Amino acid sequence: MDRSAVVGVDVGGTRIKSVLVDGDGEVLAAKVVPTPSRPGPKLGRVAAGLRRDLEDEAGVPAGALAVVVPGLVEEVVGIARWSANLRWSDLPLTQLLAEHLDVPVTSGHDVRAGLLAEHRLGAARGVDDVVFLPLGTGIAAAQMTGGQVVAGSPWSGEVGHVVVRPGGPVCGCGAAGCLEAVASAAALGRAWSTASGEERDAEHLAGAVAQGDPAAVQIWQQAVEDLALVLAPVISAAGTRLLLVGGGLVLSGDLLLDPLRSALAARLPGRTDLEVAPAALGDRAGALGAACLAADLVRSTR
Amino acid sequence: MDRSAVVGVDVGGTRIKSVLVDGDGEVLAAKVVPTPSRPGPKLGRVAAGLRRDLEDEAGVPAGALAVVVPGLVEEVVGIARWSANLRWSDLPLTQLLAEHLDVPVTSGHDVRAGLLAEHRLGAARGVDDVVFLPLGTGIAAAQMTGGQVVAGSPWSGEVGHVVVRPGGPVCGCGAAGCLEAVASAAALGRAWSTASGEERDAEHLAGAVAQGDPAAVQIWQQAVEDLALVLAPVISAAGTRLLLVGGGLVLSGDLLLDPLRSALAARLPGRTDLEVAPAALGDRAGALGAACLAADLVRSTR
Repeated sequence: MDRSAVVGVDVGGTRIKSVLVDGDGEVLAAKVVPTPSRPGPKLGRVAAGLRRDLEDEAGVPAGALAVVVPGLVEEVVGIARWSANLRWSDLPLTQLLAEHLDVPVTSGHDVRAGLLAEHRLGAARGVDDVVFLPLGTGIAAAQMTGGQVVAGSPWSGEVGHVVVRPGGPVCGCGAAGCLEAVASAAALGRAWSTASGEERDAEHLAGAVAQGDPAAVQIWQQAVEDLALVLAPVISAAGTRLLLVGGGLVLSGDLLLDPLRSALAARLPGRTDLEVAPAALGDRAGALGAACLAADLVRSTR
Repeated sequence: MDRSAVVGVDVGGTRIKSVLVDGDGEVLAAKVVPTPSRPGPKLGRVAAGLRRDLEDEAGVPAGALAVVVPGLVEEVVGIARWSANLRWSDLPLTQLLAEHLDVPVTSGHDVRAGLLAEHRLGAARGVDDVVFLPLGTGIAAAQMTGGQVVAGSPWSGEVGHVVVRPGGPVCGCGAAGCLEAVASAAALGRAWSTASGEERDAEHLAGAVAQGDPAAVQIWQQAVEDLALVLAPVISAAGTRLLLVGGGLVLSGDLLLDPLRSALAARLPGRTDLEVAPAALGDRAGALGAACLAADLVRSTR
């Protein structure tokens, strides 16, 4: 096995996170920069700059680099098909990287990469049938079956845009009643702001739930039911053994996970072999996952 | 590639179907026998008998044999964990076969094997991200991602036991409101019998739907909505490109598939790359899939 250090870069809506890791997955250097406006065409240059800075900080050269992004990604051709947030379509991401870097490069999807990292370095070690659900501003999922991260259509994992409440709140995508419009951290903040008459976020809602506020509990429980409605069929079809919940919302811990376990048990009678647990790598999962993709590239090209 | 003929056996609740196929998947002989009562421990002897009869009929020896069964199956250890219908638990299926046969043997799950056959010989040729949903007396699904049939927990594919109508009709499994209790062919026959006041089956219901009977259309449409509620998250999470519907209900063709396409489109806004089509192999899919497993065994052991 090649033990080169590699760089992983995770492009988010507001920040770009990057890490330089060694062959054991240890982080030797890390850097976060703001996401520029209309970042698509700039990503080659940005990634090359991050690589230089990380190499300088760690005093170690990188043998490969990978960039992961949200939205619709077609890994097999290295093209980021679409991101509403980052305002690109059909961005030839791997090609852009290759133009600015003199090491092997690849690209991928942020949540699928995050799942890969959780499997190698985090809370999914030793489990090969996993659903990873980061709950943040948006909702997307990634699935692993038999130790392989699932990537079919570029729409893979876009469970945030499954309609759970037809005619419900309008989603950023334009449709009504998407899971993301009713159960994301952003949606919970909006619902709690409306209910409480003040500008509130999901963290504040979680506090009110912990104190037993009835209105807060109702909003929370409805979101949990909506999540279970989407997750139960996925878990059932794939025979998922571990549901890893990540993102900002999981910081509320069992306040979220206990009712989610109950809601899933109610939807999946008989199932006794499902574990629901918090993810381990926090907001670094995507960058670490990108590093995993880069490490695989080094191995496959030597 | 080894071109031996092989035997595939599909054990159903009422009938056992078997085929002897050549290296191109052509059926050289086929035989159907009634399923004996409490068939579990008898399956080794039954399979050996079918093999002899099929070899005699075709005049060709079989190089391997596989048996597929419904319920909870753990392929990796060759154990049929549970079937309500066939009344077994923890049946050491592969071992039973090995005790009665002098060729390589293996075992598997009927719907997962059916999907494999549809992928190699039927309506899923050339598509690697597929959900296969046979709608019959019961409901189970199989999933393929990246060309690999998904098998996680033994519960994989048991989407018939996802609760879609909490507090709804009681299912054979004991829970209330399972998909199988509201949208299987058996459930539709029961609902139509109740509505029409006469003993009817799903085929008769389909006839009434085709004639525009309002009560029939309402039952049909509700079942389609329930199916879409379970299928949409699965398709979304895995990036499924092709939904293959099989079983008796699909004989009604676009009468079923058109409203299902509409219901899925309503649940999956933006998705334009999903095809919904009828399966091609009919009630022989399981036996042909078993033959695919046997053929793979021949290749891997030579």
